Amino acid sequence: MAGNAVIGQSGGPTAVINQSLVGVIEALSAAQKAGKIGKILGAKHGVRGIVNNDFLALDNLSKDLLERVAQTPSSALGSTRDKPDEAYCLKIFESFKKNNITNFFYIGGNDSADTARITAEMAKAAGVALNVYHVPKTIDNDLRTTDHCPGYGSAGKFVALAHQGDDADNRSLPGIKINCIMGRDAGWLTAAAALARVEENDGPHLIYLPEVDFSEERFIADVDRVFGKLGRCIIAVSEGVRYKADDKKSLLAEKIMSGGEVDAHGNRQLSGSGALADYLTNLIKEKLGKVIEGRTGKAPKLRVRGDTFGYLQRSFPTIVSESDAFEARECGRRAVQYSLTAPEGLSSGSVAMKRTSDSPYKIDFFPTALSNVARQTKHMPVEWIVNGNDVSAAYIKYAKPLVGPVPKPGKLF
Amino acid sequence: MAGNAVIGQSGGPTAVINQSLVGVIEALSAAQKAGKIGKILGAKHGVRGIVNNDFLALDNLSKDLLERVAQTPSSALGSTRDKPDEAYCLKIFESFKKNNITNFFYIGGNDSADTARITAEMAKAAGVALNVYHVPKTIDNDLRTTDHCPGYGSAGKFVALAHQGDDADNRSLPGIKINCIMGRDAGWLTAAAALARVEENDGPHLIYLPEVDFSEERFIADVDRVFGKLGRCIIAVSEGVRYKADDKKSLLAEKIMSGGEVDAHGNRQLSGSGALADYLTNLIKEKLGKVIEGRTGKAPKLRVRGDTFGYLQRSFPTIVSESDAFEARECGRRAVQYSLTAPEGLSSGSVAMKRTSDSPYKIDFFPTALSNVARQTKHMPVEWIVNGNDVSAAYIKYAKPLVGPVPKPGKLF
Repeated sequence: MAGNAVIGQSGGPTAVINQSLVGVIEALSAAQKAGKIGKILGAKHGVRGIVNNDFLALDNLSKDLLERVAQTPSSALGSTRDKPDEAYCLKIFESFKKNNITNFFYIGGNDSADTARITAEMAKAAGVALNVYHVPKTIDNDLRTTDHCPGYGSAGKFVALAHQGDDADNRSLPGIKINCIMGRDAGWLTAAAALARVEENDGPHLIYLPEVDFSEERFIADVDRVFGKLGRCIIAVSEGVRYKADDKKSLLAEKIMSGGEVDAHGNRQLSGSGALADYLTNLIKEKLGKVIEGRTGKAPKLRVRGDTFGYLQRSFPTIVSESDAFEARECGRRAVQYSLTAPEGLSSGSVAMKRTSDSPYKIDFFPTALSNVARQTKHMPVEWIVNGNDVSAAYIKYAKPLVGPVPKPGKLF
Repeated sequence: MAGNAVIGQSGGPTAVINQSLVGVIEALSAAQKAGKIGKILGAKHGVRGIVNNDFLALDNLSKDLLERVAQTPSSALGSTRDKPDEAYCLKIFESFKKNNITNFFYIGGNDSADTARITAEMAKAAGVALNVYHVPKTIDNDLRTTDHCPGYGSAGKFVALAHQGDDADNRSLPGIKINCIMGRDAGWLTAAAALARVEENDGPHLIYLPEVDFSEERFIADVDRVFGKLGRCIIAVSEGVRYKADDKKSLLAEKIMSGGEVDAHGNRQLSGSGALADYLTNLIKEKLGKVIEGRTGKAPKLRVRGDTFGYLQRSFPTIVSESDAFEARECGRRAVQYSLTAPEGLSSGSVAMKRTSDSPYKIDFFPTALSNVARQTKHMPVEWIVNGNDVSAAYIKYAKPLVGPVPKPGKLF
């Protein structure tokens, strides 16, 4: 009798993580019909559902429901922040053996890839027959090996559209506006703000990423220059900006929120709080105010506002990149295909993408070892960061097909 | 020779304020062709452009540009927060006389209606021939006389979709989530969060509006009850919640942000800061933590997050309600029609809407005196607020056709 398959979702939600889920279900249903797979199970809240024997039957779901699930943001199976240690993994195996599970599909980011890797290695060491496939997803776009990550394009579209609207807002009522964007260790999502620009002087005018040292003095000087030229300034700031790019301990947000929560991965909670935006807003009011006063002899009345995009950017319904939705679904399907055929001998691995052409945009999918994806973060290349406060044309060329087209704003002046 | 017409936009942006602008331009172009109007001018940044003689020529704009402007959020002419006093108004008249302006169209909220009213009255007293028409717009939906305001439906759609996504997010990674929504004095926009719900137990689970007294004790008890039942809780809170509903001085946000900015209308800046969300987040962590500890003897680890929707909710491209876009355009057209034909003797006035049928949804447009719209705020009827923490079916019936359909989320459990 063919073994059963279980699917889990892990980590922060995205707009298309359920596309991947539906892709896995679709391909498993076909495999099931061909007698290659037994039951199709969904683990509620990832590995937590596996150890708690908390499964959903995913066989015979209607096409209508599956399509609605695919279009719903966030993880339909429920997610988890748990990171299994050895004892946790033993419980996973017990559950797998008990439920005759031979194929495990885990949709998630690099922490989830690491969970998949540990699970696969422990299964191998324990002599348990188990193929583990990781399906990449993260709005952070920080997985190694793959050209980009499902989830990034749609979150990038939200960030780009938000900045386009905010730029129109700021033209209408000029001032200085800061937008804080997710991405603890990598600036990819913040960089997508640049895709809002259609014409010269469109915002964002300044972009700050975790990959370069953040200096409050340079920040104030940058804002002073843009504000002096345009009478307004839109600034995109990653929640992960830090005083020293290679030093996690120098995060601005940590300095501001010392005492905040730390999760199971040792990460401090940065989102779900407006603290960084409020800190930078006050910094500009104070320091830039003094700079201008020193130069002109007059204390300026600066209109400075800060927004934190928070959870909106990762799970806003209807704001989905077309290529992202397609690729997320396809990554799910490929995971099943790779898991059952073990190409390149990889019966466990992760699905990755390789760009074969920029124009027209074309992608190939391929299997890669879990160790090529797990743990480490893929940063924005420093050569794509300009002057420490902007991104390059090479980044735009890379990101545009992932995010898709943005409207051309109508302007009267 | 026919006099010239000038159009201005004022106050906070909306997703459809440029639909109204294009509606005015379209109708004025037709009137111009019929010889009823001379030049069509746009005042840059509202009354400020008028007194500074800072006009744009709006004759002969291409249909393509006008349609792109109509679909671009925020005020394409630029906006202002200026509120003219007597001296300011005299400068407006001088500009009008100098530029042979006989028709003034002002697109804005109740502060803008008041500016229009003052301007019209001063023109009358000064014997200056001038028809002033106000075109309603505000995401706050707080203008009197009209059934609802252009701009509300689209902002409501953003708020409803955001909550739908956030509810999926919160199901996936359960916790307590607070969303702070614009609306200084009226709860209309916050109430729109309720339109996110499709099935039982969908969030938001609690909704707090400025129209009822806010009690921190009741708030904590409400969250305790929902969290105890569902293991999660989504809360929509207006930025304008206050300890006493009829007392502006008891705003929570003011208590938290005392020392913040006050604008020309005497309003304290509430948006563009995450302070209220952060305050309520900490309140729940502390007080609810103690309540649960007192009952169970164990200090719970509560996952509480707060997002502030900020400027995103008022100018996000592509998130537009269809009926809202149509009505905003039509209000602009009607303003020109009313201004030129002076129905009911109202050569100056405001455009209002009357609902003639709920199902199918139908609206009639009519002219009303500026004094019927200016200054005072239209609050949510208290009978539409349930238990101080939710809205009624009557509100849903009222708001649904304004916001339009929301997706039906696909759920697996």
